[in-house]
Amino acid sequence: MNHAAHDRGAPSVITDRPVGPVVPLAVHRLACHPLGLDAVTIRSGTWAEWQRDNRTITTPHAFNWLEADGTVDNLRRLDPAADGVPARRGPWFTDSDLYKAIEAVAWDLGREDSEELTSLIAEMTQILKSAQLADGYLNSFVQAGLDIRWDNLVNSHELYCIGHLIQAGIAHKRSTGRTELFDVASKAADVVVADFGGGRRSDTDGHEEIEMALVELYRETGNRDYLDVAAQLVDRRGHRALHPAELWDSAYYQDATPVREQTTVVGHAVRAIYLLAGMVDVAIETGEKSLLDAAIRQWESMTATKTYLTGAVGSRFVGEAFGDAHELPPDLVYGETCATIGNIMVSWRLLLATGESRFADAIERALYNLLAASTATSRVGFFYNNPAQRRTALDAAPTEGRPNRTDAPGTRPAWFECACCPPNIMRTVASLSAYLTTRTADSIQLHQYLPATIETDVSGARVRLEVETLYPLSGTVAVTVAATTGKEWAVEFRVPDWVDGATLAVNGSPVGFSVDKRGYARVRRIWMPGDVITLNLPIVPRFTVAHPSVDAVRGAVAIERGPVVYAFESVDQPETVDLNHVELLYDAEIREEFREDLLGTQNVTLSIRGRARRDAGWAGAGWKRREDVPPSDGTEVDLVAIPYALWANRGPSVMRIFVPVESSLA
Amino acid sequence: MNHAAHDRGAPSVITDRPVGPVVPLAVHRLACHPLGLDAVTIRSGTWAEWQRDNRTITTPHAFNWLEADGTVDNLRRLDPAADGVPARRGPWFTDSDLYKAIEAVAWDLGREDSEELTSLIAEMTQILKSAQLADGYLNSFVQAGLDIRWDNLVNSHELYCIGHLIQAGIAHKRSTGRTELFDVASKAADVVVADFGGGRRSDTDGHEEIEMALVELYRETGNRDYLDVAAQLVDRRGHRALHPAELWDSAYYQDATPVREQTTVVGHAVRAIYLLAGMVDVAIETGEKSLLDAAIRQWESMTATKTYLTGAVGSRFVGEAFGDAHELPPDLVYGETCATIGNIMVSWRLLLATGESRFADAIERALYNLLAASTATSRVGFFYNNPAQRRTALDAAPTEGRPNRTDAPGTRPAWFECACCPPNIMRTVASLSAYLTTRTADSIQLHQYLPATIETDVSGARVRLEVETLYPLSGTVAVTVAATTGKEWAVEFRVPDWVDGATLAVNGSPVGFSVDKRGYARVRRIWMPGDVITLNLPIVPRFTVAHPSVDAVRGAVAIERGPVVYAFESVDQPETVDLNHVELLYDAEIREEFREDLLGTQNVTLSIRGRARRDAGWAGAGWKRREDVPPSDGTEVDLVAIPYALWANRGPSVMRIFVPVESSLA
Repeated sequence: MNHAAHDRGAPSVITDRPVGPVVPLAVHRLACHPLGLDAVTIRSGTWAEWQRDNRTITTPHAFNWLEADGTVDNLRRLDPAADGVPARRGPWFTDSDLYKAIEAVAWDLGREDSEELTSLIAEMTQILKSAQLADGYLNSFVQAGLDIRWDNLVNSHELYCIGHLIQAGIAHKRSTGRTELFDVASKAADVVVADFGGGRRSDTDGHEEIEMALVELYRETGNRDYLDVAAQLVDRRGHRALHPAELWDSAYYQDATPVREQTTVVGHAVRAIYLLAGMVDVAIETGEKSLLDAAIRQWESMTATKTYLTGAVGSRFVGEAFGDAHELPPDLVYGETCATIGNIMVSWRLLLATGESRFADAIERALYNLLAASTATSRVGFFYNNPAQRRTALDAAPTEGRPNRTDAPGTRPAWFECACCPPNIMRTVASLSAYLTTRTADSIQLHQYLPATIETDVSGARVRLEVETLYPLSGTVAVTVAATTGKEWAVEFRVPDWVDGATLAVNGSPVGFSVDKRGYARVRRIWMPGDVITLNLPIVPRFTVAHPSVDAVRGAVAIERGPVVYAFESVDQPETVDLNHVELLYDAEIREEFREDLLGTQNVTLSIRGRARRDAGWAGAGWKRREDVPPSDGTEVDLVAIPYALWANRGPSVMRIFVPVESSLA
Repeated sequence: MNHAAHDRGAPSVITDRPVGPVVPLAVHRLACHPLGLDAVTIRSGTWAEWQRDNRTITTPHAFNWLEADGTVDNLRRLDPAADGVPARRGPWFTDSDLYKAIEAVAWDLGREDSEELTSLIAEMTQILKSAQLADGYLNSFVQAGLDIRWDNLVNSHELYCIGHLIQAGIAHKRSTGRTELFDVASKAADVVVADFGGGRRSDTDGHEEIEMALVELYRETGNRDYLDVAAQLVDRRGHRALHPAELWDSAYYQDATPVREQTTVVGHAVRAIYLLAGMVDVAIETGEKSLLDAAIRQWESMTATKTYLTGAVGSRFVGEAFGDAHELPPDLVYGETCATIGNIMVSWRLLLATGESRFADAIERALYNLLAASTATSRVGFFYNNPAQRRTALDAAPTEGRPNRTDAPGTRPAWFECACCPPNIMRTVASLSAYLTTRTADSIQLHQYLPATIETDVSGARVRLEVETLYPLSGTVAVTVAATTGKEWAVEFRVPDWVDGATLAVNGSPVGFSVDKRGYARVRRIWMPGDVITLNLPIVPRFTVAHPSVDAVRGAVAIERGPVVYAFESVDQPETVDLNHVELLYDAEIREEFREDLLGTQNVTLSIRGRARRDAGWAGAGWKRREDVPPSDGTEVDLVAIPYALWANRGPSVMRIFVPVESSLA
């Protein structure tokens, strides 16, 4: 039973206001329209299991930690009637961790009702109501007397936290129709409007987030003040209105170059990407083409020159920041989980605005690789930063306690002192169904391929699609038209950038098609109930080479299979193999092996002939004259690769994605 | 006039106690014996000019900053009679910055007298005497009430600071014979012995340094207590006696593995290397072979797997730390100047202990590349961390003010808030003459080739060598035997690891020789005054390739010429060239051009045919299927390389050392 639909009194009718993040008002500017949790249900498979585990395993785990670390207490103690709650604990921005966890639960309620989760949100809402000041301001750090309101915006994250509160309130309202939490959030937003609106302040928050939250609040309320303030805060960026803290420069805060002049992503990766999302949100609602173009330009630069094959963005540990173009060394990548989640958020917005498949390609890469890798198969361990190569098996994460986040330990920690990533993962997984599919007046676009039920209005009537697929194990996607209308309408399939030789059939008969300029294969006709459209995306393992300016993996190849990046992990190799000293034979073939239960998944492992290098001629030497470089030596072996996302689930290991190919120079 | 000799009343007689760092007592365990500043004079050339500038330009510059930043005042204000000196400023370890600067001045006085420098040290000594507590303890941070004595050793740097005080005191005593500063230092050392000696405490300092200082103090006094405490503190390491601060683990402090079991260098690079130096010092004096072997093992691992071509060590920004074996990406290297200076210190000690040329090779690489690059040609700018590749021309360092050190700016800053590197450079340059030459009872070893005068006792009589060379511009080294004895004795020449086809001649006649197992070419005979030995080391540019496990520069070559690593800097290239998009033609020849005045030096630039890649086929793509990789496109150009050490002296620039070679994969 879907709450949102239920509360609206029309359980089976799709409205124009889907249950999910990003519901633009300026629908005439959208290339395609979002379908929410109320329209799309992931029925089975890995992602459905993750959604279930996210609800039943990760959510209680997270709230245990949020209680244990004082994150809830930090707000609970602000109730004038509170007594005996200890002094504030943890970093200054922990309110946002709780808000993101609440947002996750809210989206979950949008998928399926739960008394337990309903009362969890009720309890949290009550705490927030009691903590909120009369004028609507809410921040546990400032209200604990540890900072002064709006006095230290470069660092305080006050607007950032309120932004996450707004998104939680909107999620709860969209999912359940209830407004208690939404009212708390709106009240907090009103303080922001009152204090910042109309250019009353010239500065903004050091960490972007409030921009997209205010646009969403505009979308939910129609109150243009929220949009105006969001636009104002976007415009502020780049005018050095922030006075950088000692450690960071203006570029770290995206405050060195005005957003419309900026050509790439710079500085702290999560901040830069959240700003991008806010820019797109503002541009969609105001229709300002130059702002949208600036966002696309930055996204293009990020995608072509600052994104890892895994979907990781932000290579630098120092400043959790974007590096230079093509600065993508796997062995020193930071790759924060939140940054890649941010890229999913931006890419989704750009997909709605343009309808172009490249944005869905980016989402796919992020989902199947970095996001999937961020979370342990147990669903109670997380990577904050995401290695793309590991030369040494580091110690496992402590089962209790929170490591600092300067380097991912050998296994995924249960929690973090700076706990921004786990609840960000939670809200993404809980709302995932809303990132898969869109529609227009007379078509449905399938951007991602999962076993799902899609139910929405097309050409004025209700239609239902049942998608069956084992994707990405196989590339066959069977879409049954379960309910339809007598009018002509179209189903559009994303043709992924990695595919070669996609085919389409209807009821078993091949259908000729061309991929349109947006990257979709379209079948349009008057459908009959029971019609089956079969998309086949040949999924064969392939060798991938990075741009020649990516110095770090020159002469090396990665192996991908469909959307999945593969990795070689030490635990799968013959005992004689040290993954730091291997190379692939140039003409080696990749062999696939189906595995019934690889770390809890039906999956495919790959094996390929390589060489366990002895490097005997190199003993003691770090470099040689070119003419003295010895030929490769060592024994041939079969190396085994698994999906990158599954690495580090069997204890600490050595891991690599790119592997050198014999005779690349010498 | 040489102070030390002068004060000893025998101006022209070389004693057994040279003026310089590292003067072992257990001389019977040395493979070769150090020759100090009193025995070796660099007469001319780049290093002589740097020594002069170090004295006349860098020293006043440094003391200006040490005064401006309160480093001196922090100690001045501890005088019970001090009045009006402001509250303590700067990081907790700034005393050590001053001590290293004093040490530099002290070595300088060992080379040449100066009223001004003598009174500078006298003034500083008076400040330290007045600041020192009655029992000898001295630390401006603790005495300012900002910490409790020995209470926070993991972080406090108290022993580290005292270690540098001891080395300054010893330098002053060895150089001038004066003991005022030495007495302050000894008194401080005695507190350490009293509080830590005999196992009275089980912990040690978070930052190694005291170990080698105490061994040197043992060498200067013969008091075995100092050696015993040094040995105790070395032995402590690896038993997790330190309680790590929140951010770092035991490995950061070299406290996870006992020193004799450790097989490589781990954790904070400067700490790890200073510990190595202390281990060698202790091993030389105690004769413990297992400790020396452990140090050599770690050094070998560092040299073969964790050292950049430039001599940089410690690749990671996070923790200023060593990475894994072969984790040597040029674009994200930290490479702290102090770490490479530490490597010079360790390598020198190992050279004395073993007589093996590989340790002198490492010193040569460090001197001509990273150390030379650390300092601006103006001698008043310094790199704290040392890039080995720069993809974007960063902003120039501010002419006033001290940047944080998270990334080297486009030019070398004048000073740093954490000012450990500049005075470390100063003391190294001031004492450089002591790192060039050694002797045995009947031989002299030339490890580095500079225009120098060497005067010492060999075979019981005084001999003098005059070395003339333009090295490394040319590889011809002419050694004139200016004074000799009637007995047979030998001159030994290091044959660098990079050389091919070294020849020797005496008075113009070729001399057959073999390189001994330690790496030296030896000529032994009864010399006549005026005999000239000519070593010729063919210096031709060569392509260098890194170990195949160094992923970051696979398929790329560097160019070296003799000991000098070359770099391509944007300012020297045709305007159409973006160094991020170039490759070298595989068979391109390197052409040399002599330059009369390249950034103030007689020098050689190199040019080589390459291609300015357009990468047109890659537009917008970060990666491709291997079969879709387009062939290289672009126009052929001549690329110009200069010695790496000179980069970033002509404003911010793009720079790279390793350049890809065409068709390395594709």
